[in-house]
Amino acid sequence: MSSTPAWKRLASTSTFTAKTASSKAHLHKPIPDDLFPRGYVLGGVHSGVKKNASVLDLAILLSTSSRPTAAAASFTRNAFQAAPVVVSKDVLKQTAGRARGLVVNSGCANAVTGRQGLADAWAMSRATAALLPRSSSSETDTLVMSTGVIGQTLPISKILAALQPRAALAQTLASGFSAWEAAAQAFMTTDTFPKLRARALELGGGRTCRIAGIDKGAGMIHPDMAGPAAAPHATLLGCIATDAAVTPAALQTALDYAVRRSFNAISVDGDMSTNDTVVLFANGAADAGGGGEIDETRDRAAFVRFRDGLTEFMQELAQLVVRDGEGATKFVTVSVEGASSYEDAHKIASKISTSALVKTALYGEDANWGRVLAATGSVPLSAPLDPTRVNVSFVPTDVDEVRAKEILSAEDLEVRVELDLGSEGAKYWTCDFSYEYVRINGDYRS
Amino acid sequence: MSSTPAWKRLASTSTFTAKTASSKAHLHKPIPDDLFPRGYVLGGVHSGVKKNASVLDLAILLSTSSRPTAAAASFTRNAFQAAPVVVSKDVLKQTAGRARGLVVNSGCANAVTGRQGLADAWAMSRATAALLPRSSSSETDTLVMSTGVIGQTLPISKILAALQPRAALAQTLASGFSAWEAAAQAFMTTDTFPKLRARALELGGGRTCRIAGIDKGAGMIHPDMAGPAAAPHATLLGCIATDAAVTPAALQTALDYAVRRSFNAISVDGDMSTNDTVVLFANGAADAGGGGEIDETRDRAAFVRFRDGLTEFMQELAQLVVRDGEGATKFVTVSVEGASSYEDAHKIASKISTSALVKTALYGEDANWGRVLAATGSVPLSAPLDPTRVNVSFVPTDVDEVRAKEILSAEDLEVRVELDLGSEGAKYWTCDFSYEYVRINGDYRS
Repeated sequence: MSSTPAWKRLASTSTFTAKTASSKAHLHKPIPDDLFPRGYVLGGVHSGVKKNASVLDLAILLSTSSRPTAAAASFTRNAFQAAPVVVSKDVLKQTAGRARGLVVNSGCANAVTGRQGLADAWAMSRATAALLPRSSSSETDTLVMSTGVIGQTLPISKILAALQPRAALAQTLASGFSAWEAAAQAFMTTDTFPKLRARALELGGGRTCRIAGIDKGAGMIHPDMAGPAAAPHATLLGCIATDAAVTPAALQTALDYAVRRSFNAISVDGDMSTNDTVVLFANGAADAGGGGEIDETRDRAAFVRFRDGLTEFMQELAQLVVRDGEGATKFVTVSVEGASSYEDAHKIASKISTSALVKTALYGEDANWGRVLAATGSVPLSAPLDPTRVNVSFVPTDVDEVRAKEILSAEDLEVRVELDLGSEGAKYWTCDFSYEYVRINGDYRS
Repeated sequence: MSSTPAWKRLASTSTFTAKTASSKAHLHKPIPDDLFPRGYVLGGVHSGVKKNASVLDLAILLSTSSRPTAAAASFTRNAFQAAPVVVSKDVLKQTAGRARGLVVNSGCANAVTGRQGLADAWAMSRATAALLPRSSSSETDTLVMSTGVIGQTLPISKILAALQPRAALAQTLASGFSAWEAAAQAFMTTDTFPKLRARALELGGGRTCRIAGIDKGAGMIHPDMAGPAAAPHATLLGCIATDAAVTPAALQTALDYAVRRSFNAISVDGDMSTNDTVVLFANGAADAGGGGEIDETRDRAAFVRFRDGLTEFMQELAQLVVRDGEGATKFVTVSVEGASSYEDAHKIASKISTSALVKTALYGEDANWGRVLAATGSVPLSAPLDPTRVNVSFVPTDVDEVRAKEILSAEDLEVRVELDLGSEGAKYWTCDFSYEYVRINGDYRS
């Protein structure tokens, strides 16, 4: 089926190497201010949700653009939706996709918190919305996200105090790298580094915009430090903002497409949390000439460039979460090609990426095509596999000089499955299962 | 949601205990000969598939009943079906459910072996069928199973030599415990003990029958020792025989029902292998008076007793596989109750049982209801959950004096999820994720 790959031959010939994860700190680096989208202000503070006063736990983002802001979001499909998820869905609906702000707290998920939790999430939204001049008929146009302990209510008075117009947060809102970095730090729970990226994006016809984003998640999450009733869970949060002008409908379509190929193409244990949320804002501040919002049909070319650029950008953000996988010693791209539909390719890639047998083999640097094959064959598909045409191979990923430093400590490899049934493909990113993963997730006191 | 359970309070208050698995040898014990079904002969030998000459690797079972034998089987749904699976399906079809024998080898799965593999599986079937007087018009009426390395062909000449009428195996076929035990040993690959059970079963109206069964599987399987191209996979095999008289159709119905609630209700990493097979024979040898075969409709009461007795018996066999889970320190019953359908309950139980976050928490003895909840809520159901009515609890399972010795070394506990939506329920059995699991499955040289 596949000959012994080069990297495996280079692997230790003694017994199982049992690597430990190396530092990922190098994955956070300064970004020039001019790569950040215009018309947004952000900030992060310590409000008191987390015990350690030197750790940030509350962040806000506000669009100050004079043009209408469009917003889109993607939420967990878990039947247990945390209060912030319920509220954000409602705000998006009430504003018909015209939300202008976001408030995020870490340290407490505000999940399984009943009526009190809902009231608290609404209060956070309204308090943040009050920092901008009223512009819509709905009571609030701010989305909410939370991450942390399940089953405990928020210390809402501390949060509301920190959201007052004269408190430190509102007084120190700014644009640029430092402001975005502070916000990114406030998102962190068990992340070992703040996850922040920004870049310019060409839309064609001389139009340029900028896009920046924060996400959080660490493959598998530390149990919370807060007490015996605390229950840890792995949450994936993302906040992306651009100064392109895009209609709400086109923005949602682009986000759904991008999420499918990025945040929904990474393995975080295969467990979907109660809080997963990704929000995207587009405020048109890049276009001083006031050109119209990009519409999916009318501006097809620009829309496709935007959607594809967004997808690539979100893939980079999502991969940071995988690289921060606790105890992970490998960053693995699972690439399924030659499928008859994108859906089939995605399902197979997902199955391989969440297989305990595959992931422990990766930790042991075992080129175990049999396990990949068994995982592949166990997925019910729209068009059945032809077992005689499936090929599995292991590939060291291309590392060019420019990116070499960036991915230095993560050992990158690719598992490629060729189905030879059609021309659709999908990629998934995952990490290995190591001793540290068991230790961290078994030890509720760690 | 749930108070701290008793067993958790008893758990060590120091750091993470990191238990290691204890011996499961006590789970294999002698069984009185008269509990085994009449009219079957079995044997097990070393044929040469495995390197170690003192280890058995080939077994056969033949029905010598003067009455017609009915057979039923359940096969893997993996798209990659091993040669023995393809052949067994065909034999069952050709004989219209009247197969009379089984041949099993361990040490080589005869999977991904192309035309040669198919030819070899047919040859094994025919050679074994030749040991019985011809009775059907089809070329062979023997089913085939294999387990072991994927991607290597069988040493077929050695196997065929061992199946000759004058070779040791055919000459030493017998009934009773010793014969069944030898066969069970020939099934083993990474199992730490042979898995064999037998019992009597009351069918009502004064009718009694006996049922015996062998299965194999060890939660997670050792990589094979045979060489660099070898690829390990986890296979579940089962062979059950009864001397009740049952029609082929009723037998298949009963088996499907029982498999769903036993072999398909255990977690073996969540990965379905290329070789999974369970076969069931019923030869009517219990009924010397020659009463008719039990039919699902005509003999409803007897059929239900048979089906339910078979289910309970197969659950005991399946649980042995979980108890032998490599590195497992816990035997966990996941019980989902109050669902609107059996299907929904089964899906949720399955999701919880295959969750890495839940299983590492169990290893760390962390009563982590949050993770169980998140797993529960992530399953798409026919009738949506009401989050406010779901309850998660942890229960030490009842241990009575009689069974205390038997389950002494496995620490038993139950995770119970009450949905309060209906009255259907399902049970699943699984084990925890420990360091040993990672070591064994990461280390392809172990």
